[in-house]
Amino acid sequence: MTGVSIIGVGMTKFGERWDKGLRDLMAEAGVKAILDAGVDGPDIDAVYGGCMSAGRLTGQEHIGALIADQSGLNPIPATRVEAACASGGLALREAILDIRAGEHDIVIAGGVEKMSDVAISQVATTLGGAADFEWESNFGATFPALYALLARRHMHEYATTEEQMAAVAVKNHKNGALNPYAQYQYKVTVEQVMNSAPVAEPLKLLDCSPVTDGAAAVILARNEVAKKYTDTPIKIISTAQASDALSLHDRASLTELKATQFAAKQAFEKAKLKPKDIDIAEVHDCFTIAEILAIEDLGFFKKGMGGKATVDGLTKRGGRVSVNTSGGLKACGHPVGATGIKQAVEVAWQLRGDAGKRQVDCEIGLTHNVGGTGATCVIHIMSR
Amino acid sequence: MTGVSIIGVGMTKFGERWDKGLRDLMAEAGVKAILDAGVDGPDIDAVYGGCMSAGRLTGQEHIGALIADQSGLNPIPATRVEAACASGGLALREAILDIRAGEHDIVIAGGVEKMSDVAISQVATTLGGAADFEWESNFGATFPALYALLARRHMHEYATTEEQMAAVAVKNHKNGALNPYAQYQYKVTVEQVMNSAPVAEPLKLLDCSPVTDGAAAVILARNEVAKKYTDTPIKIISTAQASDALSLHDRASLTELKATQFAAKQAFEKAKLKPKDIDIAEVHDCFTIAEILAIEDLGFFKKGMGGKATVDGLTKRGGRVSVNTSGGLKACGHPVGATGIKQAVEVAWQLRGDAGKRQVDCEIGLTHNVGGTGATCVIHIMSR
Repeated sequence: MTGVSIIGVGMTKFGERWDKGLRDLMAEAGVKAILDAGVDGPDIDAVYGGCMSAGRLTGQEHIGALIADQSGLNPIPATRVEAACASGGLALREAILDIRAGEHDIVIAGGVEKMSDVAISQVATTLGGAADFEWESNFGATFPALYALLARRHMHEYATTEEQMAAVAVKNHKNGALNPYAQYQYKVTVEQVMNSAPVAEPLKLLDCSPVTDGAAAVILARNEVAKKYTDTPIKIISTAQASDALSLHDRASLTELKATQFAAKQAFEKAKLKPKDIDIAEVHDCFTIAEILAIEDLGFFKKGMGGKATVDGLTKRGGRVSVNTSGGLKACGHPVGATGIKQAVEVAWQLRGDAGKRQVDCEIGLTHNVGGTGATCVIHIMSR
Repeated sequence: MTGVSIIGVGMTKFGERWDKGLRDLMAEAGVKAILDAGVDGPDIDAVYGGCMSAGRLTGQEHIGALIADQSGLNPIPATRVEAACASGGLALREAILDIRAGEHDIVIAGGVEKMSDVAISQVATTLGGAADFEWESNFGATFPALYALLARRHMHEYATTEEQMAAVAVKNHKNGALNPYAQYQYKVTVEQVMNSAPVAEPLKLLDCSPVTDGAAAVILARNEVAKKYTDTPIKIISTAQASDALSLHDRASLTELKATQFAAKQAFEKAKLKPKDIDIAEVHDCFTIAEILAIEDLGFFKKGMGGKATVDGLTKRGGRVSVNTSGGLKACGHPVGATGIKQAVEVAWQLRGDAGKRQVDCEIGLTHNVGGTGATCVIHIMSR
């Protein structure tokens, strides 16, 4: 099978980017990735872009063509994919499949979201479109409320505590404080998390990822082509995707994300690896409980032990598995469509040894990108 | 290279479907395609869905997961792609690439749009997101207005007349009158088109495709697998996609759609065919002028001669090339994300000899799906 590698990466500073619009952010990330790869624009054969809600948040759909146009890349094919918060990971996956299909040699996969130009109430309603709008959001269930249900049930079944969830935020802010691209570059304490304002109990403000503007991009190439551009290609050793019921009320369990479990099984089988082989993982911590679910469902820790593992430091930088060295969605920020690509950018930087103050010793990395409350999951495993 | 065939097709009645929601329409088309192919649900490996604006029109994003969920297909991968009015064609293309990549054997590609549940003003604003929202729609340029500019320039450069454009509508309504799935199953005359209310001069009401609810689906399989299910697989002999500037003011020409020309060149080269080899074509006639542009840019007729060719009957059923036997977007209707898939359904029916009263003699067919005012074009060529 055709092998695919990442040969260049780039991202914008994440945050409230009043200075840049949707198209500016996307082009900035793309140009950085192009410069990082050392490719010329005309060498790029196709564009894949992940974006959830530009339509609702900016009026603009047709995001693939927008990216190609703004980046001066037309007439090459430009495709937008959307799977709510997993849009970025899915753009990466479709770009990989495109190269494996023999369609193109060099493809750029990007992700973008511009969220801060509208009222926060509009953002909340828009994000409701990631869950089941007709049967959940329409009746008032916000995203924090839906994840609060997952947290409550996890606390009930496994005696997970609010302090354990807070430990996720503490760890990720500690990592984010070392990341110049992060929205929040400061540490928080367990006490600060516990005393922050309730959003949807038991989730408090500092259990939640923020509203963020930002973009990220990676350049992918067929392995034979990648060699021409870099001595440090990051090899994609597996890609997997799965789906689950859109509504929580249709799920078999509220303490397991079946889509994560299903995609993880496939990703590890394809890579001929086990969870213990992963050195570094960027997982989807849209809320602190989501990271606990993720590190359990990915098989890093036994179901119910994610909170304790976090408190015990097993997921800190240099722990058994370094989780969310970027700061995760929690501290690095969560521009929805960009998140899955940012995860790949961080893992590539870490595997190349380019992660600066937050560098860890690693050879194999994983990205875990979730859409909605778990109806989509996309996983990639990468190596030096 | 892995060959891919269509082994089953299905679509809903197009129209104002007050009786069905987004998810009902999609599931109905999907089930029809599954029954047509004779596959069992568990045989399907992945879903691709084209949809432009469910976010803005219904509140629901995350359409891939919605389709898999509503159709009982999870946990298989489910991916939404969006390229405005070319979303359906792009879903078909990504499904083909997925199979060619060796990722899956049997994939369903669908398209859906539910447009009639909101005020027409909201539909018009939403469709503005297919053009450049910041630099065109935001200043009041509606889609009919943008295509009116293309029509005016074509009239100026090539002496194309309003009567010639009306001939496109007359032909497509004549075809739609024979199609039980069409939104408008009645004929119109040149006089009726000419006397219909002006929308954006020179375009009148009967020059415009309507607002439509509907869905369509096709089942694709690797050729070796296709043989197990059908004696009449429809072979995909080429897929091509191209992009162009999002705004009309950035285009080199207003009388040529470069994305169509670029994608057509690639599609014909890959298929080792020429325009004269095409017996039947479903082209993107969102406005009558769009069909004239399409049949010129695809190479069926010399630039500037599309209007005359239509009046001369060269594009009628059984003409030099039978164009829009389904009734096209004009008469069959235009549920945006479904259109590109419906084109494939019609071509498959025609090639299989299943097109009923509108059947033409044909061996090779083409689909031409355009996003926005031409910023995306996706073309497929198929054969018996």
